[in-house]
Amino acid sequence: DREKRVAVLAGDGIGPEVMAEALKVLQAAEAVFGFRLQCEQGDVGGCAIDRHGHALPAGTLSLCEASDAILFGSVGGPKWESLPPEQQPERAALLPLRKRFDLFCNLRPSRVFPPLAGASPLRSDIVGDGFDILCVRELTSGIYFGRPKGREGEGADERAFDTMCYRRKEIERIARKAFEIARLRKKRVTSIDKANVLTTMVFWRQVVNEVSRDYPDVQLNHMYIDNASMQLLRDPHQFDVLLCGNMFGDILSDQCAMMTGSMGLLASASLNETNFGLYEPAGGSAPDIAGKGIANPIAQILSAAMMLRHSFGHEAAARAIERAVEETIAAGVLTRDIARDPAQAVGTAQMGDAVASRV
Amino acid sequence: DREKRVAVLAGDGIGPEVMAEALKVLQAAEAVFGFRLQCEQGDVGGCAIDRHGHALPAGTLSLCEASDAILFGSVGGPKWESLPPEQQPERAALLPLRKRFDLFCNLRPSRVFPPLAGASPLRSDIVGDGFDILCVRELTSGIYFGRPKGREGEGADERAFDTMCYRRKEIERIARKAFEIARLRKKRVTSIDKANVLTTMVFWRQVVNEVSRDYPDVQLNHMYIDNASMQLLRDPHQFDVLLCGNMFGDILSDQCAMMTGSMGLLASASLNETNFGLYEPAGGSAPDIAGKGIANPIAQILSAAMMLRHSFGHEAAARAIERAVEETIAAGVLTRDIARDPAQAVGTAQMGDAVASRV
Ligand SMILES: CC(C)[C@H](C(=O)O)[C@@H](O)C(=O)O
Ligand SMILES: CC(C)[C@H](C(=O)O)[C@@H](O)C(=O)O
Repeated sequence: DREKRVAVLAGDGIGPEVMAEALKVLQAAEAVFGFRLQCEQGDVGGCAIDRHGHALPAGTLSLCEASDAILFGSVGGPKWESLPPEQQPERAALLPLRKRFDLFCNLRPSRVFPPLAGASPLRSDIVGDGFDILCVRELTSGIYFGRPKGREGEGADERAFDTMCYRRKEIERIARKAFEIARLRKKRVTSIDKANVLTTMVFWRQVVNEVSRDYPDVQLNHMYIDNASMQLLRDPHQFDVLLCGNMFGDILSDQCAMMTGSMGLLASASLNETNFGLYEPAGGSAPDIAGKGIANPIAQILSAAMMLRHSFGHEAAARAIERAVEETIAAGVLTRDIARDPAQAVGTAQMGDAVASRV
Repeated sequence: DREKRVAVLAGDGIGPEVMAEALKVLQAAEAVFGFRLQCEQGDVGGCAIDRHGHALPAGTLSLCEASDAILFGSVGGPKWESLPPEQQPERAALLPLRKRFDLFCNLRPSRVFPPLAGASPLRSDIVGDGFDILCVRELTSGIYFGRPKGREGEGADERAFDTMCYRRKEIERIARKAFEIARLRKKRVTSIDKANVLTTMVFWRQVVNEVSRDYPDVQLNHMYIDNASMQLLRDPHQFDVLLCGNMFGDILSDQCAMMTGSMGLLASASLNETNFGLYEPAGGSAPDIAGKGIANPIAQILSAAMMLRHSFGHEAAARAIERAVEETIAAGVLTRDIARDPAQAVGTAQMGDAVASRV
């Protein structure tokens, strides 16, 4: 059993700061649980454009190929905003990585930590003692990658087009993931579609129904995307696992994340079928607070915990980190974004220390 | 100047009840403002499937063709839910009407009435004294109507696909509408796209930028759809007019509607370039409360007001109805869905009377 390798791509903005804390917490977990990870850094995003002319340089890609998981920070910032949208760091780094490693299964948990329920933009009687929604998003197909796409024609008839496409096997494998995970949770899957308009989504619904026959213990219902965006606000507690295609999952997972009010706490995992995964915070690179030592490292730390669970099978260590985060929050050790009283807020490194010491 | 004709399609569920109140209020407006509308009823939706085998029977379509506007109730209900999604009443009635009459411009105002701000699912410090967002949604193109769409292949490779397509002229005309309307409001347009992923949306952004040069007095910014679904929750006051393609507008307009907490109050208009329009409540047919005389008729009444404004140029009458609605709400005449104390709630007809008497 060789030492597992992690490609550490900290990226831009607050990426490097919060990554340092995640590595600190990983080291604490290594010491406690007696495993070793070999972490190697690579350039990605805007800083990689500056240094190598490309958001995902060849060297970074080889590093990822030689690794068992990617711990990703965040990319992008005002410096690169004038680039054409399709060349922006986020897109130019993430989409090729997803496709190259077949990271079809994106897990985005949106959970309210009870002591922080007040941070949710939703009314307290709707948040209650917190909700816990897991968005399972298909990440390598759909309209993101469908062919053909292009531009043609001239004058008033000039046009652009994209193709939304789903294959049976693509729907099957993400649906299975959703049902499997629901079994470890509240056993409820809500499949999101727009079957009343899109041919792709009629097929999506059909295949999800077929897959669901293998999971009679999991309750399945179907919901149109427009209705889902309403129902989430009306009563988030009605949801357990959301099963979404690529585009709808992009929208709903961000809506769910913002509904928690604590983007700085949310992790995500993008997995393929061989336990390889890319792990990254749900939030962005927050260039406005970069370099100030005040960013919240929890999302990055919880992303590292997801990595231990999904890529390395270190379930106990993952839980220990998650518990350490909960205890840290319960103890009132909070960065500025989630502290009730900013004067009492701790910095990035203190927050990392507080978690590491509790692992 | 011949008498203007209105095709009145009440539909299913609460449709007929709330439509009766809208017609009552229109009559009051006719009396006060001295115009006459010729209203004729037609079958649509589930009840039309039952009676004629089709959600949009030929007779109803001819009625619409002979009219100057369509006042639409709502369609659908559990009785027709077992039909294949693409045959469901809502879709089978609305999509053909939109296409047949080239109703490319969908206006969906989401406004919080200050006395009802507490109904919003958002925290009161976020709602403040109410927000007012107008979603301008392109309604006859995009992935809803793009060709080709279909299914092909077999086994694991069986697949379904849809085409998202936008032509320059389609983007131009909806963008112009958004800028024109913004001029009558706070002069801010936020154009929603996913230009970092979709070729169509790169083109969308480019054409919107070009159109914006004719409106230097209106402030334009661009926002990715996923970010928009977050920003709306974080601070709805940052938005004035949202300019969206068909699919994204479907999702965001429903999110905005639910954010008000009073779906029963929200109207919508779907217009073409000749002042012809279809006017309908934002909410659904609410089969659970149909026939009980407790549904809120305000959304239908405000849809009728939008019809007077956009199809018939009766701006004063439209305003009088809108003012009458505001006064009715301020006076505490409220149906069950918006009443703080259900014991004090009035019925559908009383609400209609209260508005009609104030026109
Ligand atoms: C950057 C962008 C391409 C990406 C996406 O749309 O998937 C991002 O929004 C995300 O959700 O990870
Ligand atoms: C019924 C459906 C086809 C329709 C749409 O998606 O446009 C509806 O959701 C709407 O927004 O009017």
